[in-house]
Amino acid sequence: MTSDADTNDGRPAATVEEHLEQLYGSRMMRRQGVTAPLGFRAAGITIGLKPSGKPDLALVFNEGPDLAAAGVFTRNQVKAAPVLWTQEVLKSKQLRAVILNSGGANACTGPGGFQDTHATAEAVAQTLSNWGTQTGAGEVAVCSTGIIGERLPMDKMLAGATEIVHEMGGGLEGGTDAAWAIMTTDTVPKQVALHHPGGWNVGGMAKGAGMMAPSLATMLVVLTTDARVSADMLDLALRRASAMTFDRLDIDGSTSTNDTVLVLSSGASQLEVTQAELDAAVFAVCDDLCSQLQADAEGVTKRCAITVTGARTDDDALAVARSIARDSLVKTALFGSDPNWGRVLAAIGIAPVTIDPDTITVSFNGSVVCENGTGVPGAREVDLSGKTIEVVADLGLGDAQATVRTTDLSHAYVEENSAYTT
Amino acid sequence: MTSDADTNDGRPAATVEEHLEQLYGSRMMRRQGVTAPLGFRAAGITIGLKPSGKPDLALVFNEGPDLAAAGVFTRNQVKAAPVLWTQEVLKSKQLRAVILNSGGANACTGPGGFQDTHATAEAVAQTLSNWGTQTGAGEVAVCSTGIIGERLPMDKMLAGATEIVHEMGGGLEGGTDAAWAIMTTDTVPKQVALHHPGGWNVGGMAKGAGMMAPSLATMLVVLTTDARVSADMLDLALRRASAMTFDRLDIDGSTSTNDTVLVLSSGASQLEVTQAELDAAVFAVCDDLCSQLQADAEGVTKRCAITVTGARTDDDALAVARSIARDSLVKTALFGSDPNWGRVLAAIGIAPVTIDPDTITVSFNGSVVCENGTGVPGAREVDLSGKTIEVVADLGLGDAQATVRTTDLSHAYVEENSAYTT
Repeated sequence: MTSDADTNDGRPAATVEEHLEQLYGSRMMRRQGVTAPLGFRAAGITIGLKPSGKPDLALVFNEGPDLAAAGVFTRNQVKAAPVLWTQEVLKSKQLRAVILNSGGANACTGPGGFQDTHATAEAVAQTLSNWGTQTGAGEVAVCSTGIIGERLPMDKMLAGATEIVHEMGGGLEGGTDAAWAIMTTDTVPKQVALHHPGGWNVGGMAKGAGMMAPSLATMLVVLTTDARVSADMLDLALRRASAMTFDRLDIDGSTSTNDTVLVLSSGASQLEVTQAELDAAVFAVCDDLCSQLQADAEGVTKRCAITVTGARTDDDALAVARSIARDSLVKTALFGSDPNWGRVLAAIGIAPVTIDPDTITVSFNGSVVCENGTGVPGAREVDLSGKTIEVVADLGLGDAQATVRTTDLSHAYVEENSAYTT
Repeated sequence: MTSDADTNDGRPAATVEEHLEQLYGSRMMRRQGVTAPLGFRAAGITIGLKPSGKPDLALVFNEGPDLAAAGVFTRNQVKAAPVLWTQEVLKSKQLRAVILNSGGANACTGPGGFQDTHATAEAVAQTLSNWGTQTGAGEVAVCSTGIIGERLPMDKMLAGATEIVHEMGGGLEGGTDAAWAIMTTDTVPKQVALHHPGGWNVGGMAKGAGMMAPSLATMLVVLTTDARVSADMLDLALRRASAMTFDRLDIDGSTSTNDTVLVLSSGASQLEVTQAELDAAVFAVCDDLCSQLQADAEGVTKRCAITVTGARTDDDALAVARSIARDSLVKTALFGSDPNWGRVLAAIGIAPVTIDPDTITVSFNGSVVCENGTGVPGAREVDLSGKTIEVVADLGLGDAQATVRTTDLSHAYVEENSAYTT
């Protein structure tokens, strides 16, 4: 999906992106994010958590009237304090605000780290209450991203929690500032808003540039909507969208301790929507944020879509696609624009799925390079020099299929990740 | 274990390497390989499979009197023609010879590729027969390594099969030439011989510099012994040794289509040995070859041992150690000498094993960096600048443990693997 596109030529959609383009077209705007829906305010400020002095604290505030919310979280068994906190507060299915910091993950910080998270939520709640919106700490989600294993400087956090509420006071803007403040190794902020033809809106922002998969990322995503929907509808829409988007973005096979995706509804549009309408809109926003995350992944020089077709089941297709997407030898070959299809076959062969090596067909960018497990003439000449590479592997065993988005493995990835804390 | 070491100071062995050093000490020689045991000849020649013009064909020949043999192979479901062939011929538990080529894997080459392998074995058998040793193609194992998906130039292979038998005619030397001829991206040949105090010998050679794990590698290994042992004893010794050595060498999580480890016995020493003696000697040779493979892995700047202790079961310990050893973020941190223990915890948390994040202790090079899931003061100051890094993660759940050997993920790895076919 391209940003701010304004036409489609009426052809039947060949891809998810084209389908969304036809559905929503010019209604998707990347210049707006969480404050595009009615009833939300946001801010992003600098409180000195990052040595760079860049913005590092963000707030998203739901003015209501509704406070419905839902979330999905990392599957990593090692969960950061803010994840444990936010999972707990979401049991009420209500959120008034989300406070997010970059510059420190507050993961592996023990009971003290959890107390820090609690104190941060309490400070936000207290300031919002003083400011006129009665709020409890249990209505404030906390998200953190950055280095694992360091306590946050709580003097800065608590002062920042007060400051950012005042900062946000002025107006409905601030979504873009918030998107900037949650960045770590991201090079660009990521946000999008969908202005639904029905008159309601969904907005979102995301950060994350590595460590994505198999579930989410050091990925923080906040979605907002002004549709009138229950928390259970939000939960269903979010789970369905995540399973097809963020869960299938696999940059390096690593999975963060802090991954969090939240969705908040203000109901401020006064418009009720169906589950199907909500599902489609939330999916569209997640899909767009996902492609922005992929494009900005650490050290990426190629955006790669790995599609497995002809599998016996959807789960099989996904497992094989992940095996290809995570293989270091496949990923370095993609970096080198090298149509080394043998590595794709080797990666298929180690997937935890029974395959038949003699029925596999592989194509790169639409050119068949391997048929029935054997190379075809000209396979080495396929041009992979572009920024986008499409790998399709047909297992020849059934009708199921799945696509995983990934990137190449480049020098820049190694560089960026070899010197992150030092 | 160091090569050609000649002393030990009588201390109790603290590591496997020290134990082997005490057991065999100066009896391990890296200047010798498959022809160290009596009854074996070998050769390595150049037949033009590699653009570089370097040696590319090797032969190991068993003069007997025994022809007992065993093998272990890749677990990849996509198996190269020579693997399928050699698995078949090994059903007889006898081998007269092994022909090995670099410069082409003969994988994913269809029925034609299998016929090529058969024809190569036939040519070796025919030449050996002409030369005075009656041999059938079914007694000739074939191993290939190199690019996947290309047919081998059979004119060169068949002429080479004849030439190499004549080349080997001259004497018992040639083991070192063979070790050179099987190299691909290896920078040094890898061989070792154990001259057992009991008067019998085990020799071996190996190639492989990437793509090792979870089972073997694009790793080819041939072991020889002059002990009088049955094929079943060889099989048992090889399986036990492989499980603890090659199977636990995990460079990049990829697994080749061509991995093969063969062991041949000539019985020429006339000495019978026990299973325990054979197990120990085969393990010692495999362990030494394994450390040579690790040291020469593609683009390696650090040799890393990942030990997981305190697991509930050995399988759990191994699964967690593999999860750490394969994590791209851990490996790039090791490359950068960065004591980023949070990434180790994140990698433990995504292992397919139930863990308790609050009972994990991690140390780098003997310094505790994380206790009960929380960082300790000074953790960021641990010195990882050396060539060898030891990571120990204690899960605090039980008594089982396992060690996986791996390497860092460096620029050179990306460089080497991004331009392999082009």
